[in-house]
Amino acid sequence: MTKPIQVRNPRTGKLDYDIVPPSGNLLEQQCLGLRQAQNHWQQIGVERRIEALKQWKQAVLSQRDSLTEALVNDTGRLSISVLEIDSFLSSIDRWCKLAPELLQESEKNTAIPFIHLKQTSVPYPLVGVISPWNFPLLLSTIDTIPALIAGCAVIVKPSEIASRFVKPLMTAINAVPDLRDVLTFVEGGGETGANLLEYVDLICFTGSVATGLKVAEAAAKRFIPAFLELGGKDPAIVLSSANLELATSAILWGSVVNTGQSCLSIERIYVAESMFEEFVDKLVTKAERLKLAYPTVESGEIGPIIAERQAEIIREHLLDAIAKGAVVGCGGKVEEKNGGWWCHPTVLTQVNHSMKVMTEETFGPIMPVMPFSTVEEAINLANNVIYGLSAAIFAEEESEALAVARYIDAGAISINDAGLTALIYEGAKNSFKFSGLGGSRMGTAGLMRFLRKKAFLVKTNAVPDPWWFDS
Amino acid sequence: MTKPIQVRNPRTGKLDYDIVPPSGNLLEQQCLGLRQAQNHWQQIGVERRIEALKQWKQAVLSQRDSLTEALVNDTGRLSISVLEIDSFLSSIDRWCKLAPELLQESEKNTAIPFIHLKQTSVPYPLVGVISPWNFPLLLSTIDTIPALIAGCAVIVKPSEIASRFVKPLMTAINAVPDLRDVLTFVEGGGETGANLLEYVDLICFTGSVATGLKVAEAAAKRFIPAFLELGGKDPAIVLSSANLELATSAILWGSVVNTGQSCLSIERIYVAESMFEEFVDKLVTKAERLKLAYPTVESGEIGPIIAERQAEIIREHLLDAIAKGAVVGCGGKVEEKNGGWWCHPTVLTQVNHSMKVMTEETFGPIMPVMPFSTVEEAINLANNVIYGLSAAIFAEEESEALAVARYIDAGAISINDAGLTALIYEGAKNSFKFSGLGGSRMGTAGLMRFLRKKAFLVKTNAVPDPWWFDS
Repeated sequence: MTKPIQVRNPRTGKLDYDIVPPSGNLLEQQCLGLRQAQNHWQQIGVERRIEALKQWKQAVLSQRDSLTEALVNDTGRLSISVLEIDSFLSSIDRWCKLAPELLQESEKNTAIPFIHLKQTSVPYPLVGVISPWNFPLLLSTIDTIPALIAGCAVIVKPSEIASRFVKPLMTAINAVPDLRDVLTFVEGGGETGANLLEYVDLICFTGSVATGLKVAEAAAKRFIPAFLELGGKDPAIVLSSANLELATSAILWGSVVNTGQSCLSIERIYVAESMFEEFVDKLVTKAERLKLAYPTVESGEIGPIIAERQAEIIREHLLDAIAKGAVVGCGGKVEEKNGGWWCHPTVLTQVNHSMKVMTEETFGPIMPVMPFSTVEEAINLANNVIYGLSAAIFAEEESEALAVARYIDAGAISINDAGLTALIYEGAKNSFKFSGLGGSRMGTAGLMRFLRKKAFLVKTNAVPDPWWFDS
Repeated sequence: MTKPIQVRNPRTGKLDYDIVPPSGNLLEQQCLGLRQAQNHWQQIGVERRIEALKQWKQAVLSQRDSLTEALVNDTGRLSISVLEIDSFLSSIDRWCKLAPELLQESEKNTAIPFIHLKQTSVPYPLVGVISPWNFPLLLSTIDTIPALIAGCAVIVKPSEIASRFVKPLMTAINAVPDLRDVLTFVEGGGETGANLLEYVDLICFTGSVATGLKVAEAAAKRFIPAFLELGGKDPAIVLSSANLELATSAILWGSVVNTGQSCLSIERIYVAESMFEEFVDKLVTKAERLKLAYPTVESGEIGPIIAERQAEIIREHLLDAIAKGAVVGCGGKVEEKNGGWWCHPTVLTQVNHSMKVMTEETFGPIMPVMPFSTVEEAINLANNVIYGLSAAIFAEEESEALAVARYIDAGAISINDAGLTALIYEGAKNSFKFSGLGGSRMGTAGLMRFLRKKAFLVKTNAVPDPWWFDS
């Protein structure tokens, strides 16, 4: 018997949802079933898989209201939940369009005239996905969709903190005959995630560095590939030529959208000292216009902090910074309201790298701003953390921004905007340092990493070859 | 102080070469130096790196005699040593030709009209290579060359069993000013390999499954990518339509070349029962024509068993098979001659999968042949091991062979020949099961896996974007 897990509602603090994790045995049985069904899924070919994915899309559309409601209860916010569903649906469209070409076999000649090469690929049978609570639907499906189209079966274990969406999503999955045997979402906590790792052929993990390191080790022990998308501490660099109107709007959005609960949110801002004050003034003015989505989901832009543990971390980072001399321009507090945790967009100045808020992942709507005197200094500060996920650079000329971007240790860099990887999936990118490991989730690699390449080396005639023994 | 390691000569059994592994401290210093020099190596650009590699090639050519002599002493065989040097030199040519295009930046539009994508890549600073004794030069440079051209610094730790070649190779490296600061070979054993793993940013390991598993875990703990090329138990399947002349010659070559000491050697042969006897007769006749390269390196085709421990394993597999009923068609013994270990090409029949020689890696010139009655049976037998490196299939029609090849769990499959991956490097392939993990060493992926992809997402004008807050 497994123990039920009680799930907290981020707006009310009430434990109003229960999940019953599967036993190790049951999970093993589920994985066996998925693995058995995968063979048929692979054999039916990409066109029929695309057809099934499109049916899933339709089924999700018919569940749209209950899915939205569940996501709102999971996360306490509305507009991002709507966005999650839209992004999920476009992701299906995008991969359905790309997949047929990516899955084609190719044929070519080789350096040896009478040998030709046929290149094909086969999917890993069973892919495991372990996903976080900050974008429950989006991040549980971002790897799932390409894995399915590649021909894998997929088992997903979303975060226990936000898994109300699983029920309506499973209803949509069960409405698609070809799909329901090769895709399942299981509710459970860390133990279920650890168990899952024992039964899959490849693991995609999105979450914290601490858990990511454990996943990497467990995957290595089982000798399976692990694709890890972990934390970030994304810097924005505002060069002296930048348009401040544009930079402040983009950085504000990049920092506080989804209450900063995004791996690619801007968590540190370095501004050329000549315009530091003007930048801070504008940023504070714009930040103060934003409202908490309280008492209703439609009251404002800033939703509650979803995970109670995260509220604690944000508070700790704020107190640490203030104790070390940081000055609060606006916001600055984590408050409890009617059982939920809230934090107004916060601008901090007089910050430095001795403060957690400048080097550890905060995952809240906090904007510490620090001046720099030389571009070199800005680059060094930007690179002076253990993370290397993404970054943003603002300058008048693209070339000026790119010259800086080349020195930033990060896989994706937005120029004159922030967090563009959330919107553009075409750019292949690898994580630097502790922000991740394994192939790129973005670009066509996002699908190709679910395939093992197979080379058929064909001798086309019976001429005895010079490399055999003369005998 | 580190303890010297005495190295055995495979032809005489004498401990006639000493290596002194670097202390952990010294190795760390070497890695620091390489890492510092890497920045310049990356900055000079691909054309100058190609120039340096070509100079290395010339320097190796001027060391050719001493390099050949060292490899002959390392391995006890001549023609394969000559082949190793040739393959190493062509590998430099091949990558120099491919690299400029692979390292080019690209630019394209995205789904959002006013955002374009610039795609670039940056090398991992310091790549570690740990390589085995069976092809000492080839397998210590197969990953090193593309890593260097990609812009990485490289530190190589070849097997302590065969590292006499390091001295002449280092002489050639030191003759190239741009190269000598970013490439070094260190002599040492398992401890040096383990130490190396602590200081590099990416590890390429070629060797046994047992050590590969340890490397994977150590790499996961350090959170660095590991590319593992491990063992194989490659099957050959001879369908009833196959040309027996061709099949027996190719399989004999594929099984016993380099005395079977190759990860992709044919280690199991499944033959359609209708032609089983004829196949075995031909194979035995051809195998008996081959001679040991004893007393001199030019006396025959079959060199000594390089590693004493491997001679023990081959003997054990033979004794186990014979005890379980295998019949020796020719060869069948591991013999000591004047301090070296030798094994004549051996054909075994009456074999089955209860014998080690059919399921564990033998790494010797042993050809166990087993009849099959249906193609399905042949496929099941071929897949019934923990390995999935490569395979060979023989049939009259390419399509017939390919139909079988699709069901074989292996990354590279030669059709009407054996071990073609040793000759054709163009085919991307992933290892299946315990034969390896990580990106493909073959195809253009062989270079690309040393790069982290970086995406620059550039907003090309100042139009306020719809995804920002309305404020």
